[in-house]
Amino acid sequence: MQVNILHTFFMAEKGKKIKEISELGEFGLIDHLTKNIKSDDKNLIKGIGDDTAVFKTGNTCTLVTTDLLVEGIHFNLIYSPLKHLGYKAVVVNLSDIYAMNATPKYITISLALSSKFSLNAIEELYSGILLACKNYNVELIGGDTSSSLSGLFISITAIGEAKKNDIVYRSGAKPNDLICVSGNLGAAYLGLQLLEREKEVFLSDTSMQPQLDGFEYIVERQLKPEPRRDIIETLRNHNIKPTSMIDISDGLSSELLHLCKNSDLGCRIFEEKIPVAPQSIAAAEMFRLDTSLAALNGGEDYELLFTVPLDKKEEIEKIPDISIIGYMTSASEEKFFVAKNGIELELKAQGWNPLK
Amino acid sequence: MQVNILHTFFMAEKGKKIKEISELGEFGLIDHLTKNIKSDDKNLIKGIGDDTAVFKTGNTCTLVTTDLLVEGIHFNLIYSPLKHLGYKAVVVNLSDIYAMNATPKYITISLALSSKFSLNAIEELYSGILLACKNYNVELIGGDTSSSLSGLFISITAIGEAKKNDIVYRSGAKPNDLICVSGNLGAAYLGLQLLEREKEVFLSDTSMQPQLDGFEYIVERQLKPEPRRDIIETLRNHNIKPTSMIDISDGLSSELLHLCKNSDLGCRIFEEKIPVAPQSIAAAEMFRLDTSLAALNGGEDYELLFTVPLDKKEEIEKIPDISIIGYMTSASEEKFFVAKNGIELELKAQGWNPLK
Repeated sequence: MQVNILHTFFMAEKGKKIKEISELGEFGLIDHLTKNIKSDDKNLIKGIGDDTAVFKTGNTCTLVTTDLLVEGIHFNLIYSPLKHLGYKAVVVNLSDIYAMNATPKYITISLALSSKFSLNAIEELYSGILLACKNYNVELIGGDTSSSLSGLFISITAIGEAKKNDIVYRSGAKPNDLICVSGNLGAAYLGLQLLEREKEVFLSDTSMQPQLDGFEYIVERQLKPEPRRDIIETLRNHNIKPTSMIDISDGLSSELLHLCKNSDLGCRIFEEKIPVAPQSIAAAEMFRLDTSLAALNGGEDYELLFTVPLDKKEEIEKIPDISIIGYMTSASEEKFFVAKNGIELELKAQGWNPLK
Repeated sequence: MQVNILHTFFMAEKGKKIKEISELGEFGLIDHLTKNIKSDDKNLIKGIGDDTAVFKTGNTCTLVTTDLLVEGIHFNLIYSPLKHLGYKAVVVNLSDIYAMNATPKYITISLALSSKFSLNAIEELYSGILLACKNYNVELIGGDTSSSLSGLFISITAIGEAKKNDIVYRSGAKPNDLICVSGNLGAAYLGLQLLEREKEVFLSDTSMQPQLDGFEYIVERQLKPEPRRDIIETLRNHNIKPTSMIDISDGLSSELLHLCKNSDLGCRIFEEKIPVAPQSIAAAEMFRLDTSLAALNGGEDYELLFTVPLDKKEEIEKIPDISIIGYMTSASEEKFFVAKNGIELELKAQGWNPLK
């Protein structure tokens, strides 16, 4: 490499503009930048392109995932208590490990902090980080800390383990497999709408206290999500290994399309089957939002979306908190959402783009 | 946890101020935040407190380290070509893995980008990242990409492997062990001084071209460091396993004090033995800086600092590019720097504080 001092930045400025990056979107950008990566590492089972990477380490597999939370993009400190933020920053990574049917073991944390943060504030953030570690039996094993010129950046890497044959990828679904989701969808997005409204009220009159009565559940889903370790354990106890799985961070549509693409299948899901909590319905009505759209595109629910063979239907129906919402089809070009009125619509990923 | 919406940020603001954080420094802050972490994980061999974490995976060990580079804190895009920056962001992590006498295998990358970055610019950054991966036989296996409100943040996690008995910690040095360094010290710091000077000239008159003739080596040491895989391999070929080791990212003083603290020993090093490159001496003269101070406190050299038993002296002296600069002592309270005039000074860590 030649050292082109003082030129690079200005040269880069003349190049194609950021608009293209946001148009590519996060997945498009990653595809673009990594399309030429070819591995000849025999121990690397899965590189980029699933919830986590997977590589062989002795007779087990190690899984690695990383997530970045940026102030002003992923969270707003006006309504995100720092303890909750620390907790959430950890569990969104653990959720990716569980989505591989694996067990999270370790995390590392890198923080960049602007000068507005006090030691108290960082202690609060860490108390949430360590609580999440305790609740999910994970060890904090390293990190890096720096100042930033503005804002808070939290980068967490989670490391998990699993036996090779236990791991569930996005790619294993078969035609006629049942599509299942845990819990309910849209709550985190609707909780965010409520917090955004209260923020506006507060900013216009700082003596106002937030009105969240009756909506505690959806606010908690936004601020302090829990990954579904319980679902992974329940499925294991029922001897059910999903054929494909992903966690719902960007919205049901986006995640289901990942399963379809990676399994080279189509799907058909039914609006009437999508689980939505009563508080989500009430909040959607209040905000005049469509409940199903919130469930399809809202994101941040950290529920599990997975497929199981058709013959597991009876067994799955016995498990509380799992809903069968449709099935996979061999027609890989057809991804259908069947509305309550019977009309079939094409599923589109309108999930959140962190580059916009 | 209770949800104290809208209160947290303002409460935190009333707390202790950032001044305390910068006074604690990076290591003090980490100690403070993690002092109560206790692990009962039998596979975790080393958590926080060495160049990397180490845990058992089957019959080998996996090592993990993470580093964060922040625009305006760790790098300045006026003189850091993006390809070099991507390269450096990777190799500083690999350097930590080599410093454990281990082999880096995988990296993950999280990027936060402000809107000033074009697709071309990101491609440049990635070309450096991928070149480093190629040169050191490492696979990029995952990451996360986001926008930022301002600046560029690069968080990289590197994963390595080693046999348990091959790993070298900071804690294994014994009294009378020889203290060795690879390559030469202070060059990266002096390269930075030169780039900073040229930046000022450029900002006052943008038609000016940088004057770097004769200083290409120290500029390259700053912008495109190389981790010392070759030294690790050479030591292995000579059947020498260091008793303790660390990479020099924060300056010789700071790193040597880490070895002393972790091995519970003192040390005595000799100014006349510290290796400094001719260009570094010339640059130090030009800037009226003390060459030895640049070597002791400059940082970013990414050389290896290690100890070997006294009986390896002859063998070590045969290896080019390794200098014996002193020895460890049993007097753990005495860390001495013996100046060329024979005066003994106390070694102090004046390495760089990323929180200042």
